[in-house]
Amino acid sequence: MNIRLQQQNPTIGDLDKNFSLIEKAIVSAESAGVDLLLFPELATCGYPPLDLLRHQSFLDEVYAMNRAIADLVSETTVIMGTVTPNAEATGRACFNGALVLEQGAVKDEIHKTLLPTYDVYDELRYFQPNDRFQCVTVGGRKIGVTICEDIWYNYSDPQYLIYDVNPARKLVESGAEIIVNLSASPYTRNKPEGRLKMLRRHTKDLQVPVLYVNQVGGNTDLVSDGDSLALDGQGKVVGRAPMFQESFLDVQWQDTQLSNKAKPSASVPPVSEQQFRCLKLGLQDYLSKTGVTDRVILGLSGGIDSALVACIAKEALGTDKVLGITMPSQFSTTGSISDSEVLAENLGIEMRQLAIEDIYEAFTHTLGPLFEGTNFGVPEENLQPRIRGTLLMAYSNKFGHMLLNTGNKSELATGYCTLYGDMAGGLAVIADLYKTEVYAISRWLNEDYYGREVIPDTILEKSPSAELRPDQKDSDSLPAYGVLDGILKAYLEQQYDAKEIIAQGFDKETVIRILSLVDNMAYKRAQAPPAIKLSSKTFGPGRRWPIVQRWTQNRR
Amino acid sequence: MNIRLQQQNPTIGDLDKNFSLIEKAIVSAESAGVDLLLFPELATCGYPPLDLLRHQSFLDEVYAMNRAIADLVSETTVIMGTVTPNAEATGRACFNGALVLEQGAVKDEIHKTLLPTYDVYDELRYFQPNDRFQCVTVGGRKIGVTICEDIWYNYSDPQYLIYDVNPARKLVESGAEIIVNLSASPYTRNKPEGRLKMLRRHTKDLQVPVLYVNQVGGNTDLVSDGDSLALDGQGKVVGRAPMFQESFLDVQWQDTQLSNKAKPSASVPPVSEQQFRCLKLGLQDYLSKTGVTDRVILGLSGGIDSALVACIAKEALGTDKVLGITMPSQFSTTGSISDSEVLAENLGIEMRQLAIEDIYEAFTHTLGPLFEGTNFGVPEENLQPRIRGTLLMAYSNKFGHMLLNTGNKSELATGYCTLYGDMAGGLAVIADLYKTEVYAISRWLNEDYYGREVIPDTILEKSPSAELRPDQKDSDSLPAYGVLDGILKAYLEQQYDAKEIIAQGFDKETVIRILSLVDNMAYKRAQAPPAIKLSSKTFGPGRRWPIVQRWTQNRR
Repeated sequence: MNIRLQQQNPTIGDLDKNFSLIEKAIVSAESAGVDLLLFPELATCGYPPLDLLRHQSFLDEVYAMNRAIADLVSETTVIMGTVTPNAEATGRACFNGALVLEQGAVKDEIHKTLLPTYDVYDELRYFQPNDRFQCVTVGGRKIGVTICEDIWYNYSDPQYLIYDVNPARKLVESGAEIIVNLSASPYTRNKPEGRLKMLRRHTKDLQVPVLYVNQVGGNTDLVSDGDSLALDGQGKVVGRAPMFQESFLDVQWQDTQLSNKAKPSASVPPVSEQQFRCLKLGLQDYLSKTGVTDRVILGLSGGIDSALVACIAKEALGTDKVLGITMPSQFSTTGSISDSEVLAENLGIEMRQLAIEDIYEAFTHTLGPLFEGTNFGVPEENLQPRIRGTLLMAYSNKFGHMLLNTGNKSELATGYCTLYGDMAGGLAVIADLYKTEVYAISRWLNEDYYGREVIPDTILEKSPSAELRPDQKDSDSLPAYGVLDGILKAYLEQQYDAKEIIAQGFDKETVIRILSLVDNMAYKRAQAPPAIKLSSKTFGPGRRWPIVQRWTQNRR
Repeated sequence: MNIRLQQQNPTIGDLDKNFSLIEKAIVSAESAGVDLLLFPELATCGYPPLDLLRHQSFLDEVYAMNRAIADLVSETTVIMGTVTPNAEATGRACFNGALVLEQGAVKDEIHKTLLPTYDVYDELRYFQPNDRFQCVTVGGRKIGVTICEDIWYNYSDPQYLIYDVNPARKLVESGAEIIVNLSASPYTRNKPEGRLKMLRRHTKDLQVPVLYVNQVGGNTDLVSDGDSLALDGQGKVVGRAPMFQESFLDVQWQDTQLSNKAKPSASVPPVSEQQFRCLKLGLQDYLSKTGVTDRVILGLSGGIDSALVACIAKEALGTDKVLGITMPSQFSTTGSISDSEVLAENLGIEMRQLAIEDIYEAFTHTLGPLFEGTNFGVPEENLQPRIRGTLLMAYSNKFGHMLLNTGNKSELATGYCTLYGDMAGGLAVIADLYKTEVYAISRWLNEDYYGREVIPDTILEKSPSAELRPDQKDSDSLPAYGVLDGILKAYLEQQYDAKEIIAQGFDKETVIRILSLVDNMAYKRAQAPPAIKLSSKTFGPGRRWPIVQRWTQNRR
């Protein structure tokens, strides 16, 4: 049996475009003699469709699309992730399902069992869970179809302990000779390793091959990485599709053997490259799927964050689509401007300069009567990023470039950033990268990607500074980034409390201060732009922290 | 049996404060000879605690608090909503539960069955559902304890059709002589009527009295309205606690009869008053529970929105805690300033004036080289609210007043507002009020609340305008607010699609245009401040709309 795993990039709600993608893949598979063609989870409507699923007319359009796709199928059997209706009087309106399409008809239907409802996932908000386990028969062979989370049963993370059924095992117990998984799984750091380990464990436990077909592409904050995989019953990787691009993977299944006559498998790149390609695709898809503009603008401060975002934007969109603006104040060092100039020149992107001193003077003059008798302080510091944000938004409004936010996770976590100032932007490209990771990717870019000094060493080597008052350094307000990021990761991603973090060897007062900052700055982050997810815990819809609350993490 | 329904206002995560509230209520009940004291849902940690529940150390603190409260109890039996641990190896870590406390010990434990996972609710993210139904025995009588959503089974809204079990019925079938419900139910328009109707239906179906005790108070965007109720087995209201304030309700239960010897029941105020008191309490609690400041600042534009927010702020916080800033430009009418002056004088609040023309000139001068050859347009319009937002935030940063956002739902829905400009603020006080409702409450304030013209008639009567260019009117860009709000309500709250809305008699082109605006402006709303919930569908966490998506609502 010739099986094709179709790693596709649908657009949420763009049913026409997704239909065309599916149609093209079916035509191509039929002509290539594919016996079984597998599409990812919710290939029809894209993932995650969120509250679009609350509109009956949206559901009806997806159901009509299901029938139209069935009509396309002749020799090749198709298993496709899609929404299917729940005919019962009670329960949620629909299933996160899969249709088995053969000879112009729907031959069978499967529903997702484990509906993730944690982190960014809200599937119990929308879908009725499955509770019956039956294989589907294709070409006389029994296939166990699972959908995304179904295959992650009881893997190492504690969140999977909430489930008390292992769908893959249930299906093998009812005769499945192979397990298929249709996914729309977003990238997170180390996901490729974790995914392979998990799939391999299933093949060892169940002694059958596993085929994993994943969506690829960015949908606002979530980027599915592809990385579709075929493992034989001994856990050997028979085929692996590349990350972060559309592709397909052909394998042959005969008796108990899975083989791959075609091209060699993709290899998994190092973490910095994974993160870079994730952000690049996330930015590309944000623009192309929105369809409003293909150009971006960003402020170039002379620091490492905006330098990295400029590189990502240039690689994602091309030199002529990226405009950098440097906006010096009286507190800017001359290096900030010249470093930005060199960066822009190295990248080949346009850069313009707008000095903010006149506007700053106008603000302080206007505020003079109200501020009389007070000293220069945080309010005056914050004026500067807000002026810059307003200039960038004015340009964006005038010429249609989307403003990219350049803030990193370390500053977003601690609130070391200004609402309506450097927190402005349509998409926060690197807001899920800790500052230490920003450096790591930037070094990787120069050393491995470009093979030359594109980001000037002066930017890589200077002490981080917001340059909002004379001689300011980030280290005046925050611990060294190595320490800060260690504390943040322990709190946000491991969900450790203060005691546990202190037990790791961090200074007690520092831990208490940083955790309080993280908690107290929830109000700022509530108004931050969407951040492309890279970690297991990204600020945004995956972390629902009450703004008004008083819990203090054993810090009393 | 003397029963007390304790309508309390806990603070999320403030376990010490909530403990004191509970302790005080227990001491008072014991001395008043109360036999059974009922607290609302999650009275220990406040509702909704959201991802605080993800931290084991938070759960451990709540469990310790449960034991400490049990220690306080002597003669009075207490039934209290709280988090309880799930001892099973699989399933979610905890229950949304209730403890029955008697004589210093936990006598019994109940778990919530129906865990709302729609709109603003995410309870299946956190809690393991109950599946066994047993009454608790107090003073020899069998009591059926339900928690919040449990009692809303299969009421008229379609979202309740997802449930296939009616907990109250199950409990009566297993012998309950009375149904108790512990709630933390947020206010929405018509909630008091809907709640009474729902409770009354239970008494008619089940022929037993129902006691409903609700949390009161604001928690960021959600305001619980209280309105605790006691109904006898014939559906007669025996007692009703006031809305939007802490209170308790004493009833006597003997044989099958429920009676109320104490004070007369509260009556339900008209909708405008409900909404006003909801927003007032929401603002008060946002500030008092955050504890950072008790003062607010807002821009006074001379329009109805900022006038209403000024009234709410003054009534919530007092005249000396509210500062209005009027920020005229060359496009402001003189009426805008004088109307704001009269309003501030009528309210007794301070008002300051900051002309923005100099700053505006500095911006256009700085942008001159980039904008050369272009005409005045939306970018120049948007500069003005962004300058105002920056001035207000500078004041807020300098003196610690929280900036109140004054935008309404009609403009937020259509994107008729400026990111980082008039969309700035810590709390969006009236962002869930349609413009037509803003007028209704404002008129109610003058006529019924103040009994005099506090909001100047000139403000009530002028045509709405953003005053960002000469002679601008909202009606240049938007349909009349009566029409706009009708379309918005049908789309947002009834979740009708374009066809259904057009069938109601609205103009087809207008409907299509407005629905497209609502969908396309999701990116703006993603960065809006939290909005106090008043309707069944508020922008924010209750409406999860993909920013990047292309569904077009049968509009092709």
